[in-house]
Amino acid sequence: MSETVSKLIDRLYAEADQDRPDAETPDVGIVMGSDSDLETMMTGGKRPGAYDAFVDELEFAEQTDYEHPPDKRFTFETYVTSAHRTPDLMTAYAETAEERGLEVIIAGAGGKSADLPNMTASIAYPLPVIGVPVQEKSVDSVIGMPAGAPLVAVDAGKSFNAALSAAQILARRHDEVHDRLVAYHEELRDGVGAVSRELHD
Amino acid sequence: MSETVSKLIDRLYAEADQDRPDAETPDVGIVMGSDSDLETMMTGGKRPGAYDAFVDELEFAEQTDYEHPPDKRFTFETYVTSAHRTPDLMTAYAETAEERGLEVIIAGAGGKSADLPNMTASIAYPLPVIGVPVQEKSVDSVIGMPAGAPLVAVDAGKSFNAALSAAQILARRHDEVHDRLVAYHEELRDGVGAVSRELHD
Amino acid sequence: MSETVSKLIDRLYAEADQDRPDAETPDVGIVMGSDSDLETMMTGGKRPGAYDAFVDELEFAEQTDYEHPPDKRFTFETYVTSAHRTPDLMTAYAETAEERGLEVIIAGAGGKSADLPNMTASIAYPLPVIGVPVQEKSVDSVIGMPAGAPLVAVDAGKSFNAALSAAQILARRHDEVHDRLVAYHEELRDGVGAVSRELHD
Amino acid sequence: MSETVSKLIDRLYAEADQDRPDAETPDVGIVMGSDSDLETMMTGGKRPGAYDAFVDELEFAEQTDYEHPPDKRFTFETYVTSAHRTPDLMTAYAETAEERGLEVIIAGAGGKSADLPNMTASIAYPLPVIGVPVQEKSVDSVIGMPAGAPLVAVDAGKSFNAALSAAQILARRHDEVHDRLVAYHEELRDGVGAVSRELHD
Amino acid sequence: MSETVSKLIDRLYAEADQDRPDAETPDVGIVMGSDSDLETMMTGGKRPGAYDAFVDELEFAEQTDYEHPPDKRFTFETYVTSAHRTPDLMTAYAETAEERGLEVIIAGAGGKSADLPNMTASIAYPLPVIGVPVQEKSVDSVIGMPAGAPLVAVDAGKSFNAALSAAQILARRHDEVHDRLVAYHEELRDGVGAVSRELHD
Amino acid sequence: MSETVSKLIDRLYAEADQDRPDAETPDVGIVMGSDSDLETMMTGGKRPGAYDAFVDELEFAEQTDYEHPPDKRFTFETYVTSAHRTPDLMTAYAETAEERGLEVIIAGAGGKSADLPNMTASIAYPLPVIGVPVQEKSVDSVIGMPAGAPLVAVDAGKSFNAALSAAQILARRHDEVHDRLVAYHEELRDGVGAVSRELHD
Amino acid sequence: MSETVSKLIDRLYAEADQDRPDAETPDVGIVMGSDSDLETMMTGGKRPGAYDAFVDELEFAEQTDYEHPPDKRFTFETYVTSAHRTPDLMTAYAETAEERGLEVIIAGAGGKSADLPNMTASIAYPLPVIGVPVQEKSVDSVIGMPAGAPLVAVDAGKSFNAALSAAQILARRHDEVHDRLVAYHEELRDGVGAVSRELHD
Amino acid sequence: MSETVSKLIDRLYAEADQDRPDAETPDVGIVMGSDSDLETMMTGGKRPGAYDAFVDELEFAEQTDYEHPPDKRFTFETYVTSAHRTPDLMTAYAETAEERGLEVIIAGAGGKSADLPNMTASIAYPLPVIGVPVQEKSVDSVIGMPAGAPLVAVDAGKSFNAALSAAQILARRHDEVHDRLVAYHEELRDGVGAVSRELHD
Repeated sequence: MSETVSKLIDRLYAEADQDRPDAETPDVGIVMGSDSDLETMMTGGKRPGAYDAFVDELEFAEQTDYEHPPDKRFTFETYVTSAHRTPDLMTAYAETAEERGLEVIIAGAGGKSADLPNMTASIAYPLPVIGVPVQEKSVDSVIGMPAGAPLVAVDAGKSFNAALSAAQILARRHDEVHDRLVAYHEELRDGVGAVSRELHD
Repeated sequence: MSETVSKLIDRLYAEADQDRPDAETPDVGIVMGSDSDLETMMTGGKRPGAYDAFVDELEFAEQTDYEHPPDKRFTFETYVTSAHRTPDLMTAYAETAEERGLEVIIAGAGGKSADLPNMTASIAYPLPVIGVPVQEKSVDSVIGMPAGAPLVAVDAGKSFNAALSAAQILARRHDEVHDRLVAYHEELRDGVGAVSRELHD
Repeated sequence: MSETVSKLIDRLYAEADQDRPDAETPDVGIVMGSDSDLETMMTGGKRPGAYDAFVDELEFAEQTDYEHPPDKRFTFETYVTSAHRTPDLMTAYAETAEERGLEVIIAGAGGKSADLPNMTASIAYPLPVIGVPVQEKSVDSVIGMPAGAPLVAVDAGKSFNAALSAAQILARRHDEVHDRLVAYHEELRDGVGAVSRELHD
Repeated sequence: MSETVSKLIDRLYAEADQDRPDAETPDVGIVMGSDSDLETMMTGGKRPGAYDAFVDELEFAEQTDYEHPPDKRFTFETYVTSAHRTPDLMTAYAETAEERGLEVIIAGAGGKSADLPNMTASIAYPLPVIGVPVQEKSVDSVIGMPAGAPLVAVDAGKSFNAALSAAQILARRHDEVHDRLVAYHEELRDGVGAVSRELHD
Repeated sequence: MSETVSKLIDRLYAEADQDRPDAETPDVGIVMGSDSDLETMMTGGKRPGAYDAFVDELEFAEQTDYEHPPDKRFTFETYVTSAHRTPDLMTAYAETAEERGLEVIIAGAGGKSADLPNMTASIAYPLPVIGVPVQEKSVDSVIGMPAGAPLVAVDAGKSFNAALSAAQILARRHDEVHDRLVAYHEELRDGVGAVSRELHD
Repeated sequence: MSETVSKLIDRLYAEADQDRPDAETPDVGIVMGSDSDLETMMTGGKRPGAYDAFVDELEFAEQTDYEHPPDKRFTFETYVTSAHRTPDLMTAYAETAEERGLEVIIAGAGGKSADLPNMTASIAYPLPVIGVPVQEKSVDSVIGMPAGAPLVAVDAGKSFNAALSAAQILARRHDEVHDRLVAYHEELRDGVGAVSRELHD
Repeated sequence: MSETVSKLIDRLYAEADQDRPDAETPDVGIVMGSDSDLETMMTGGKRPGAYDAFVDELEFAEQTDYEHPPDKRFTFETYVTSAHRTPDLMTAYAETAEERGLEVIIAGAGGKSADLPNMTASIAYPLPVIGVPVQEKSVDSVIGMPAGAPLVAVDAGKSFNAALSAAQILARRHDEVHDRLVAYHEELRDGVGAVSRELHD
Repeated sequence: MSETVSKLIDRLYAEADQDRPDAETPDVGIVMGSDSDLETMMTGGKRPGAYDAFVDELEFAEQTDYEHPPDKRFTFETYVTSAHRTPDLMTAYAETAEERGLEVIIAGAGGKSADLPNMTASIAYPLPVIGVPVQEKSVDSVIGMPAGAPLVAVDAGKSFNAALSAAQILARRHDEVHDRLVAYHEELRDGVGAVSRELHD
């Protein structure tokens, strides 16, 4: 069995046993099926992604080291794990998610068989999972969950909105996140207003 | 202007000024575009709906009278308001949602121009809104929100899952809801297991 | 609340109270959901747009200043207002449209949730609204209005034809517009005839 | 050549020469490709049609005899003519439409080759034509007109809305039609309000 | 009325009265809706077109002058006429087709409202008409003719195959055309065989 | 190997060697992939089929016995042969078609892999083959032939029109067929005219 | 955790440790996501299923008790396990498949998120898995596996053909299965031949 | 008749009579409809193909000369034969496949009428055939086989996975192939693990 994968699995279960305080663990988990999804899911693709929403608009930080969390209060972590090539790693990630302190997961996958968000939602239940179809052709596979298997989805490629939705869930408990969402929104509205004003002045 | 609609609008704004305690207001708002959506969104249609999930599986109650809330701790309210025929009522509903104590909105609409979930999410922002396309042909219109306008969607007709997802959001703050979700899930799993066991015993 | 947006809203309601003579107000309102729609809706995109039809073929002028209308008898105005980011501005635009002297509105939006034409038609009723799906994937969302909520649509991206259709409505009352439509058409027919003649001479 | 068709063609051209006063001629022409479209286009189908909108909601009358117009000020006429089986009758209808006093045409056709609305709009130009795709599969063929060939469309089967849109065009010149549209709309809104009120009282 | 178009119409009717011998008139008429269709319908586009099939593979010639036919026994003529911009020219072309000596028509049009092949087939009846959808999105509109209105279609953009099919019809009466079709086919088969042989020798 | 199939194959090759006079052999071959296609391809289905067109409208007769042709001058034969279950019978049918005196083949198949019309056209070449997709989902498979492999198609289920198209091909050589096509058409036109007349008298 | 599910999981791992002889274990595993798939996957639905192919055409038997295999040499077993509700049972089934003696798995699932065949193929690798989309809308999700994750699919609902394909794989090693496939095929061909013969005798 | 094609056909039948030992004949036959499919089916296209899977990952060799097989134990052969242009060559290939020692066929075709995999599966029966739709639009035609005509399919363009699936079938009899499949898979899994580890170290 692949050693790299085994070690990652072990680390996830070890971390689940740590029982760290909420403020030191990532609040949002971002997981995707392939490194080719990184642009769409995070940043650098055709449009802004979840990374851009969290870091540029909502003052979150990415957490890459469990021992040394960033200074920012709100953080997210990023994993690549394929439902079809590493189903064991995917299972370990989802099984440990709640115990590792995540509040919500954003899960993205491309292709027509975009199983990662679905399986992650099924295993991490009852943690809320927001599915991101990485391609237009992934929408049906992500959104089509049967009764009893909840998952909510955003449109193809819109990991930016998935980050906003994840923040809306956090905002129910954390007023700072609520305030940042409102501040972001007012800027956005100013932008629309500016265009119409320029057409008439 | 239609008097019935005006009175409903006035009542919503009046209720927003009441500042009632959380436990007395509905936790989830269910809103839909037409009374023809009631079966799909609530109960009595081809498959179980949001009403069935909340009342039968998760011990929520429906709140129909703001003055006399039900005994149950967790409740939902139900409104019919068309984006196209009563845009003013829809606006009043969404504008007052957060102040009236709602934690999450489930918004359903049918047809190809299923604008109600989208407009509700835009106006009620930053409250999380779960869109339910009432028909298969409503999926695109519900899920296709542009960057900066968050809305999460479930599959066509699956208001049952939207209720579970709404409960998952509430469960981040309320352990009772978390426990009910887990209990419901174990029953569901028992059902699957029973079928396979019967095939072999 | 965004100050830029507020000022635009105030200006629209103020203008609605002016009661200016017909000849001084815009006859056609062109509204779209994003500045990224300007090329498709107006001019400069893959094919000629509404601006080209009005200015190059039908002798209309764009009106950008309510106090100083252009010399031309027939005019149009242009606004950018997002259904999802500035629903209040959209509502103000549509609510004041008839009082501000518009005869017909051309409303365009892109994406799968192209709600702007629909909401504008619902609020500006009974003013006729011609919806322009800015992308192919916007067609369903624009055309799919329920019974009782009239909106007429042109094909994806064809704001040029929407301008002709708006002029056809104006032509029922204004003979000059009728004559310009006929003159434009004869030129168009000459072009087709010239190609066939060249293939045979 | 079919004698029945010839006589209809002759009658249309003869009528075009009559120069009757506006109040005695039909204001709206309704034309469809087959008698199997009558239910969808007029009345008696799965949902209310153009006939129901005109007669029940807007106080129009159907005119069947050019010599003896109905008492009502606003009227419509109904023709069945196939683009594929009687192209000569279709041409005669569209060529004479403006001279026979029509202000707007509603043209419906089913099937994938729904050519009647398109051809009618092309020949009756610059009279505005509202296309009604009689079936879902007719939408593309009806809406897809090239630049320079204006036609506006409603959704599949929605001749009811086409009638409202036709009335919106007439309302630009006729205040009575404007008032009827407003009155119809208030009733519709009352209906929506009544449903929501019942859910809470 | 456009003079260029009128003259073309007159010429077609005049030619229909000439009663020229079969060998001097074009055998196949190729007609299309726009000069932008010339590449797809004739030659020079992404793949070989009808011109390439007729001239390069089947020894036909294009006839551009009715008075001076080419030396070749089998010929075709080419017309551009829009169903939506010049319906009168389209009608004249189809009405005179049989009398002008054509045996079969190939009619191509693009867009979603590809009405030209349909209307040409309806008017030129009982002459066989082969419809060519110029774009993928034109297929439905071209193929979807109702019962009683025969038209046969080839796949999107395949005017090359339409030419072969037209030749198959001519081959029922003309052995030379039959022989050329067979000779062309053997060459084609040799090409396939050569590839497989090279993979193994 | 199946004896029933072998005997049919032998009979086809034997018949090809007979060299019977044209007037004694079937003019049109109708072939389909399954006996479940008989209703759609021949008669008795949701709409009239090829049998109805030939027998009721065009005075053709079905020929079932090569030794004793019917009295009628124009005839068709009917075969069921599956491309997937009896490819050898399909090949024998197509290979012998031209020699057995057929002028044109109508080939229908259902399902998504509707290979029978395509293979028949490929093998019977250069005989013209009209493909009939028996179901809507068969259209793509039937129409999508590559360059060099001609086949013309009618719309899903429209074997009636395929019969008219086959007759149009025969009519190029046989004036009686031409006259029958014209007579049928006039009746059809009378029907349309009658409906419109009734709406106005 | 659900006790029923746990016991099934334990039994599967226990069975994997048994190391039974090939002839006593099932050769084919049939697994599906829900008991509502039983009709389509096995027997009793709109068309014959895998059960009918195995039992009626190929002389296989269903094995329901590991201790007491049926008399027939070739057998299949049937399991219901949901990818979304019982991912742990699904994993146990696929992980033990090869050790429990299966040669090939037929895995069916319905809905748009038909993840079961995909996950089963990923986990049971390198055992061949034939995916059966239970509904038309399941096809994309089943067939769309990324590079490196092999799964082969049949058309929607065609578990009958999946059984034939599974037998084709077994036939590479087992001549009896080969012979049964050939015998079944000859009967099928006789049926086609009989229909065509009846049309002509 | 094309001589090149005839010779290929003769060679195939001659080879079928040779009765060579298994180890000297190709194990897998790869056949495709056109030389334009070579990139997708073999190597050099947008993604790795069957050639890459066999040669780079599974240590197979291509066999091009029947007399001099390569040193490697497992081999494949490659043929180009069009269903529509060389149906006789296609038939000869499929009829001789089993006798020439093939264990499984991979058959690819593009376009909407992708008949080659279907016909090959029908004629080579009961040899297992894996269909590869060369384009997205070929999927329906390849997968849609009727009951009784087994063929299994992979997703559009994924000849790489078809090669893995073919090897999975061979692996049931040949342990070396089984081991190579497992080794390939572990490498693949290491790659996924490495990406996630890099995101966190």
